[in-house]
This record gives sequence, C-alpha cells and structure tokens, in this order.
Amino acid sequence: MSDIFRKIDNCVTAPQGFRAGVIACGIKSDATIKDLAILASDVPCVAAGTFTTSSTRAAPVIVCQERLRSGRAQAVIVNSGNANCATGELGLRNAYSMTEFVANRLNLEEELVLCSSTGIIGRQLPIEKVQAGVAAIELNTDQGNAFSEAILTTDTHPKRIALEFQIEGSTVRLGGVTKGAGMIYPNMATMLCYLTTDAAIEHGWMKTELQAAVADSFNMMAMDGDMSTNDTCILFANGLAGNTPINPQHPEAGTFREALRRVTQYLAREMARDGEGATKLMTVHVHGAQDKADAIKAARAITVSPLWQCALAGGDPNWGRIVAALGASGCKLDQSNYDIFIGDVQVMKQGLAAHYDQNAARAAMAGSEVTISINLHLGEGLATAWGCDLTHGYIDENTLYTR
Amino acid sequence: MSDIFRKIDNCVTAPQGFRAGVIACGIKSDATIKDLAILASDVPCVAAGTFTTSSTRAAPVIVCQERLRSGRAQAVIVNSGNANCATGELGLRNAYSMTEFVANRLNLEEELVLCSSTGIIGRQLPIEKVQAGVAAIELNTDQGNAFSEAILTTDTHPKRIALEFQIEGSTVRLGGVTKGAGMIYPNMATMLCYLTTDAAIEHGWMKTELQAAVADSFNMMAMDGDMSTNDTCILFANGLAGNTPINPQHPEAGTFREALRRVTQYLAREMARDGEGATKLMTVHVHGAQDKADAIKAARAITVSPLWQCALAGGDPNWGRIVAALGASGCKLDQSNYDIFIGDVQVMKQGLAAHYDQNAARAAMAGSEVTISINLHLGEGLATAWGCDLTHGYIDENTLYTR
Repeated sequence: MSDIFRKIDNCVTAPQGFRAGVIACGIKSDATIKDLAILASDVPCVAAGTFTTSSTRAAPVIVCQERLRSGRAQAVIVNSGNANCATGELGLRNAYSMTEFVANRLNLEEELVLCSSTGIIGRQLPIEKVQAGVAAIELNTDQGNAFSEAILTTDTHPKRIALEFQIEGSTVRLGGVTKGAGMIYPNMATMLCYLTTDAAIEHGWMKTELQAAVADSFNMMAMDGDMSTNDTCILFANGLAGNTPINPQHPEAGTFREALRRVTQYLAREMARDGEGATKLMTVHVHGAQDKADAIKAARAITVSPLWQCALAGGDPNWGRIVAALGASGCKLDQSNYDIFIGDVQVMKQGLAAHYDQNAARAAMAGSEVTISINLHLGEGLATAWGCDLTHGYIDENTLYTR
Repeated sequence: MSDIFRKIDNCVTAPQGFRAGVIACGIKSDATIKDLAILASDVPCVAAGTFTTSSTRAAPVIVCQERLRSGRAQAVIVNSGNANCATGELGLRNAYSMTEFVANRLNLEEELVLCSSTGIIGRQLPIEKVQAGVAAIELNTDQGNAFSEAILTTDTHPKRIALEFQIEGSTVRLGGVTKGAGMIYPNMATMLCYLTTDAAIEHGWMKTELQAAVADSFNMMAMDGDMSTNDTCILFANGLAGNTPINPQHPEAGTFREALRRVTQYLAREMARDGEGATKLMTVHVHGAQDKADAIKAARAITVSPLWQCALAGGDPNWGRIVAALGASGCKLDQSNYDIFIGDVQVMKQGLAAHYDQNAARAAMAGSEVTISINLHLGEGLATAWGCDLTHGYIDENTLYTR
C-alpha cells in the first residue's frame, strides 16, 4: 500500500470524532475478560449495514435492521459471551434495553443506538450486568484497539485496520474491525464488523457500496460452511472531514470505494487466517468462468471442501479434491479444458494431470499462505475467495464449547 | 424386521443366479489387499442406475450412464485404489477396456458390462494389472461378502444386506452392498452401491422406484458435504424368481418397493455410521415443515453443520448450533414456534430454551446413536437424514491421503 492509502493505527477510532470504550461486565465466565464494548460518534452518522440472512436471526440483528431503515446511527454496543439468539420476546426486550442504557449514558437519541451480541445461542442475557457495565464504561478516542479486542470470542488475535487518504484535498480516514473465527460462511456468518469514517457520504451510495464490498470480501470468506444467526457489518460515516457528501457523481467516489474494498478485503483475509484451528490461509482465484456467479460458486466450493481443507492442513497437494469440489460446485466446466495451479505449480492442464514436480507442489503447500488458481477457459467470470485449513484445533475448539 | 422381510446372508449373491469374485491385482500399494471385483448375473438383467451429478464425473460413470440407456446389463467390474477421474481420453479407453476384459472372460456381450472405480483422482489406471486380475478372478455364488469387502476404501467395515420375501407366492431376494466413508454428500457421493434381485421387474418402474429410494436414503445421508466424482448406484434384476414382471399395476409392487426402501435405508445408515473418523450415527427427523423440500433442506443442513458435528463428537448438547444450521438452511421457520428434541429431551420449545435437565440432555448425546427431532409446526413436510460426528479421526484420515 505504498500509494494514496496510508495505513494508520487505532482502527475504528482513527477517523475524527469516534470514541470507544470497553469493560469486563461478567457475561463471560472469566470475569477478567472484556466482554462489553461501545463505539460512538460525537455527532449522528449516515449509516448502513448488512446482516445474516438466517431465518433464526438474533434479537440484536432485528433491532439493527429496524433502526438502520432511517439511514442514521450514532453508536453501537457489543457484547461477547452470549448471542442473544433464540431468546424470544425477552431477548428482544433485552436488546432494546442495551441501547437504552447507552442512550442514557451518552445522552443520545435511543433510535440512533445499535447493538450486537456474539457467543452462545439460547441463553438469556444477564441484562443487569450489561446495565452495570454500561454505567461504568469510559469512552475515549484512543480505544479503537481495545474495542477490537473486546468483541472477540474464539479469535486468536484482533482483526483491525485503518487507512488515511485524501478526498477533495482533505484528509479522510476509514477504520474497521472484525471478529469471527468459527461459524463463518456466506451472507455474513458470526462475524461482526464495524467500519467508521469521517468522510461525508450520501446514504444511498453508501448502502450500495457497502453491499458490493461485503459481497467481494466477507461473503467470499469461509471457514466451516456454517452461517451464523448474528452476522453484522455496519458502516458509520460522521462527515467530520467536511467533504461534499460522496454520491455516484462525486469525482472521488472511486477513491472511497477503493479504500472500502481494501479495508473489507484485508479484514476478510485476516478472519480466514484466524479460522478456528487454522494454520494456513488459502486464497482461491477462479478466472475464465462463464460469468461471475459461476466463478463465485467455484471459488467458494473449494474453500468449504472439508477434504481439501484437510489436505491443505497436511500440506498434501491432493488436487483431486479440488477437482471433486469444482465438479460438485455447480459451475459450468469443460472436463477437457481447465487448469489448476497450486502456487506457481500447474498440477492440472486441460483436465489432466500436468507433468509437475511433486516436491515443488509440496513446497507450494508448505507455507502459511497457499494460493490456488483455476482457469476454466469459458468466459470472463472471475472471483477470489479466502478460507483456511481444517485441523485438530477446529475439532478441539468445537467439541466442548458450552461446558 | 420380524415381518414379511427376512434378513439373509450373502448380500448381492443371495438372489438366484448372481455370482461374484474378487482379487488383489496390485492397484493399491499393499499388494495383499483385494482391489478388483466382479459381480455378474447368469442371464441378462433389467438394470437401472443413479449417478453423481458432478460436472467432473469420472470415466466409469460416463460408461455406465451410456450403457444403461438400454435398460439392460449383466455384470459390473469395480476397482478400488484409483478413481479413473480427471484422466481424459485414456481414462475413458481404460474404462471401456475393463468391461471388454470381463466380457471376454465371462463370455458376455460387452455392451452389458458396466464398470466402477473408486480411489485417488487424477492418476491413470494401471490397466495391465486390471487385465491380469480379470483373467485370474474366479466367480462364485458364495462370494457376495467378499465382493462387499473388495470395493472398500477408507471404510472400517463392509456395508451389506439381503432380504428374502414373497411375490406371487414365490421366494424373491434383494441384496445390496455399498462402500463409502468420505466425500459423501447429496446426489450420491464416492459411494458405490450395487443391488441385485431375482425378481422380474419392468424397466420403467424400476427406474422410478430406484430414483425414489435413493432420494430417501443415500441422498439423505451426509458425512462431510463433499460430493464425489464417482457416485454410482445400480440395481440388477435378473427375473429368475419367475414372477410376472413388476410394474405400477402389479398387486405386489408395494412389497418390492418396501424391500428396496429397507435395503437402501439400511445401507445409508450404515454408511453414515462408518463416516471417516465417525464415533456416532446421527438421525435427524424433521416434521411439520411447510413441504417435503423444506423438510429435506432442514434435516440435511443439520447433518452437514461442522459445528454441530463437533458438538456431537463431544457429547455436548449445544443445540444453539442446531438453531444456527436450521436458520441457514433456507427452510421456512417461525422463530416463535418450533421445537427441538435431542433423543427424548425437549431442549427447545416454541423457539425458546425449554426447561430441561442438562444431565438428561448429555445422556441423550452420549450413545453411539443420537436422534434429533425437529417440529416446525408449519405443515405436513417430513424428512429423515443421517450423518455422523466430526472428529480427530476425520482429520487424521484426510490430511495425508495421497502419500
């Protein structure tokens, strides 16, 4: 990124006028772990979100979807340790209460406060602990990194980034954080993502661009094929940079679009790398598909094939499993004319085993990042997907989660 | 089965006029392992098959699909250790050669001989070894069980059954074998299944009934969500029982249908139980879905959720993962009115955690067979799916398969 986008610190509190705070309120059994966090803007924001498409979506998702219809928001409260899902009417009341506590504490309109929850499904939130936590949280402009840590569940490290760039000659910043390591699949999966910017943006354009960016980043990232009930990605733009609000006609709309792409794709890659038990990040490039939809099908099918994920874990260039995953993906394919590369090693040529060096293929599988490239030679469709390997660590992480 | 269907020995050679033979021909690296098998009828059969829908289907699948258009077949040759997939024109020639060897050896019309392969993808068959193997194989009416063993790959035990029953007062037999333990998902997955009967059956009815039976058995069984390139299920009916050929008007068509259901569902369950690394068989019953398609979606989604499969492995009644899998399945669902049972323990009632005994729930997860029942309270749709847990054994089995 030695270009017009400069990486800076503090992620979601890097843009002007955003503050965050975190606290250990006791939702998680280990009372020393920060499990409650607030992110807020000094002024109301234009805001948009994308959410799980699950039919068992959690209470906080319902609240966010309802409130974001206005296109405005100013703060979000997030707890980890409890998903507030499958909790019925009481769960919904608790989600609203969370936002009420924040509105009172920060003197905001309650309608402008959003909420998210992540953790175990089917248990009611200990709402009095949340209330006490909100009362005690202090917000600060240097707490973005602390915020990125408090929202984690089984993640091994925080995922955060901020970019600084120019719009109309003024400095604009875009920050982002995500959490999510398991139950990660399409259409958002318990992943939570918060993006902040001090750019001024028109709501319609923001919504379209956020959806497009999510489609090419988080929705192209998979760990285990499980979609969550709580997936959430929200972008807040408080406009404090003072630029003309960005819309499709804005001459620098492309700059913000590119920044949004970089931030979301960076976070998606980092999430895939941090999949439960993961030791390797895989990037799958598909080109030559008959169209983009087919390229997406093909790329994603490979990232969620447990057999290929196991081969990846073992560093075994068993590309027959890529063939099987491709075949099952539903993408159009000419069995006598497609190519597969592992790293730079062409293992299949025109539908047949290529003459390749086994040691080179193993070497291409050995690092912590493995790239698979597929050319279907049918058209112009291309897509990139990210995933990780399937290891004993995943099993360990998930066999006894609720105990 | 203390009823009109009596379980008997010898699986596919239990019906009159079927013989089988097996040999170690050296396709697998351990030269003592039987890796080549032939199943043949003394007389031409009415035959039908169902196959993988993969777009990277293997050469033997192409041969079977082509030859079964005639509705007739008399024998099948099966090798394990090599899938003859992604092998191009030479692979297809080799598949035809396999059938030619058998036709010459047994003095059959070549057009009546089918072939199957299972094993590693992307390597050419050592066809001269197959030729030598066919020359040396001896077929016998007591070799059904040996046949069921020779087609295995990573299976831990053979899956086989035969039923004896009456049609028009005469004894009829239906036998079946399957192999398959990994890469198992919808629309057939490397599973191979051969069914034999001495009943006389009309081809049209056989085709319809086989498809329906496969839809409710093998296609409802999943281990890892991977569909194979080689899936095959073939039914041979040689008519030696002498009954009037069964068609939709035959008064005892229902008896044969029921036998076919029992045999295919028994084999599907046994395959799920023998999933790679599996320690538990799970049966998922969904009822009250708005229609059958929705019930299938819901039931299957639970069997292929890696998170739920891990919880099952750990005996952890973490039913939130069932909620998540249901929500992501795409089935219609009323969040305030659905019920979930683990064994007999109701863990969710009307969309909320039921008041249940944790120890009872754990006990219901403890055995080698776990049953999940879901009532969606929306309509009459029902479906049953089978799956298994996800364990370290699966990872071990699949990280270093080609080495």
